[in-house]
Amino acid sequence: MLPIAVDAMGGDHAPGAIVAGALAAAAEGTPIVLVGPPDLRDKVDIGELPLIEAGEVIEMDEDGGRAVRRKKDSTLVRAAEAVRDGKASAMISAGNTGATMASALLRMGRIRGVNRPAIATIIPVPGGQPTVLLDAGANAEVQADWLVQFAQMGSIFSQHRFGIDSPKVGLLSIGEEPGKGDSLRKDAYELLTAAAESHSELRFIGNVEGRDVMSDVADVIVTDGFTGNVVLKTLEGSLKAVVNGLLGAFGSTPEYKQHADALMPAMMPLYNTLDPETYGGAMLLGVDGVCIISHGSSSQRAIFNAINIAREMVEGDVVGEISRAISPAAA
Amino acid sequence: MLPIAVDAMGGDHAPGAIVAGALAAAAEGTPIVLVGPPDLRDKVDIGELPLIEAGEVIEMDEDGGRAVRRKKDSTLVRAAEAVRDGKASAMISAGNTGATMASALLRMGRIRGVNRPAIATIIPVPGGQPTVLLDAGANAEVQADWLVQFAQMGSIFSQHRFGIDSPKVGLLSIGEEPGKGDSLRKDAYELLTAAAESHSELRFIGNVEGRDVMSDVADVIVTDGFTGNVVLKTLEGSLKAVVNGLLGAFGSTPEYKQHADALMPAMMPLYNTLDPETYGGAMLLGVDGVCIISHGSSSQRAIFNAINIAREMVEGDVVGEISRAISPAAA
Repeated sequence: MLPIAVDAMGGDHAPGAIVAGALAAAAEGTPIVLVGPPDLRDKVDIGELPLIEAGEVIEMDEDGGRAVRRKKDSTLVRAAEAVRDGKASAMISAGNTGATMASALLRMGRIRGVNRPAIATIIPVPGGQPTVLLDAGANAEVQADWLVQFAQMGSIFSQHRFGIDSPKVGLLSIGEEPGKGDSLRKDAYELLTAAAESHSELRFIGNVEGRDVMSDVADVIVTDGFTGNVVLKTLEGSLKAVVNGLLGAFGSTPEYKQHADALMPAMMPLYNTLDPETYGGAMLLGVDGVCIISHGSSSQRAIFNAINIAREMVEGDVVGEISRAISPAAA
Repeated sequence: MLPIAVDAMGGDHAPGAIVAGALAAAAEGTPIVLVGPPDLRDKVDIGELPLIEAGEVIEMDEDGGRAVRRKKDSTLVRAAEAVRDGKASAMISAGNTGATMASALLRMGRIRGVNRPAIATIIPVPGGQPTVLLDAGANAEVQADWLVQFAQMGSIFSQHRFGIDSPKVGLLSIGEEPGKGDSLRKDAYELLTAAAESHSELRFIGNVEGRDVMSDVADVIVTDGFTGNVVLKTLEGSLKAVVNGLLGAFGSTPEYKQHADALMPAMMPLYNTLDPETYGGAMLLGVDGVCIISHGSSSQRAIFNAINIAREMVEGDVVGEISRAISPAAA
C-alpha cells in the first residue's frame, strides 16, 4: 500500500499532536508520509517517517479557495499532489477545512460524473450505529439531483465505514410525509424515489427529521451543505453545553464529586460514543482520491483514528466503488 | 384582562392535562376560557371554567391549512375567532402546529406590514439566558427581507419574555464572516446591517453558527423555517439521546444507581433548564393576537407555564409593540 500523506501543520495542536498520531499509526504498520516544512525535524521528533517538503502553511482563518490558488507550495496542496501523482494513497488534514476541500478538488479532481464532492460526517448514536450525514458543508447551495449522488456516495461510505450491507438513506426535511419541506426537498424526494427504483443498491426510506439524526432511523442522511453544517455544529454545541452543565453539577460539592467519580466508569462508554475524536474525521466524497478532514482540535488519538479510517477507505477502494456507481459505463 | 382561550382538545394528553393546567392557572387568578366540545364536562372536571363550544377537533396528523378551511367549527378555529372577536386575549394550543398557525393567520390576520408570521421558539442555555430562535417552522422558504422582520419581532419577544433590554440578534449561517453562507444569508446580512443602522432598537451582531444556538452568544437567532425546524428537532433528538444514554448508564448496576440517586439534586437544575416544559411553548409572532403553540406532549405543567407566558405577552402588549415597530406610521 502507498503511504498515507499526513499534513503535519494542520490543526490547533500541530505539529506535535499530528506527528504523534502519525508515529503511533506507523508503529502499528500503516505506511505514512508526513507533509511539512523542511525544518520539521527541528521542531518535533518525526522518528523514521519520510517527509514531503512544503514551504508554506495555510492558516485556519484564510479563505480556502484563494489560499490554495496562492500557496502552491503549501502542505495541503503538496499532500493532494502526492495523491494525484501516485506517491500517496490518501491525504489527511486537521487544518483549514475549506482549503483541504479546495486542494483535494483542484489537485485530485472530481470522480468522472460526480457533480459536486460532499463532506460525509459521522454523527454518533448512543447505543446504536452512527449516522452518516452529508453534505456537512462543502456546498452551501445544492441542486436536487446532487442529493441523489450524495445518497449513492453516502451509501458506499456507510457500507465500508460501518459494514452496513444495505444502508437506509433518509432525506432531511421538516415532516415525514413526501410533500413536506421546501421546493428543493420536494424535488429531491421525487428524484430519490425514482433512483431507488432503478438502482437496487440505493435504499431510500423517505423524509427524516432533525430528531432522527442522532437515532437509528437512517444510516445515511442527505441534505444541502448549509443545513448539514448547521446541524453538525448545533450538535457539537449542545453536547458541549450538556457536558459542561453536568461537570458543573458534579463538581458543585465534594460529596457530589465523590458520587460522580464513582459513576465515571458507567458514563465513559457514552462519553466515548459522543466524542468526535472517536471517529477521526469526515471524508470528502466525490474527489478522485481519499481525503480525510479531521476536526481542528484533533489530538494524537484523533489523528491515529483518522489514519486508520483512511487506510480502511483505501483498502476498500471506496473511490473506485463511487466511480463505478456514478458512471457504470465509464468504469 | 380578557380570558385566555385554551384549546382543550389539542395535544397528546388532551383534554385531561390541558384542563388541569388551565384549572391551575385559574386558581392563581388568570382568567381562562376553555374551547372544547359541548360534552367536555362529561369527560373531565372543568370546575367553574367557562366553555366556548366547538363541534369539531383537528387531529395531529391532518394537513393544517386544509383542516382549518374544512373544520370551521373546530376548537382551534373557535379559539382564534374568540381572540379576533374580542372575547379572549390570547389562544393556546398543544395540538396540530400547522392548524394552529393557519387558524391564527386566517382568523386573526397578520399585523399590518408584516410579510409573514414566524414561530419564535425558546432554546435553553445551561447556565445562561435562553436563546429565541425564529422561524422554527412557519415558512419553509423565506425571502431575505422577511428575516429583518423576524429580527425585529424576535427582539421585542426577547425583551418581554426574558427582560433583555437590547437583545443581541444573530443571523444563523455557516461561518462568522459576513460573506459566509448561501445567497439568502448574504443578502440577509446586508439588509440586517442596514436595518440596524437605521433602527437603533435593532442590535445585529452578525453571523452566528450552529454551535452558538445553545450559548450566550446571541439572544435572538433568525433563520428560515426549514433550518430553524431542523435545528429545533435536532436539539430535541440529541438531548433525548443523551438523557436516555445517561439513564441507561446510571441504571446499569444497583451500585451505580445509588450514586446516581445521590447526584439527582445536583442534576435537577440542569434537567429543568433543558426540559421544554419549563418554557411552555413557542409564540407565533406577526399575527394580530397572542398565539402560543405548545409541544404536542405538553403536560399539565407545560400548559400552566404556557398560560402564564400568554398572560405576560398580553400584559406587555407584544402585539402592539410589533405593530408599532413594523409600521411606525400606521400605528
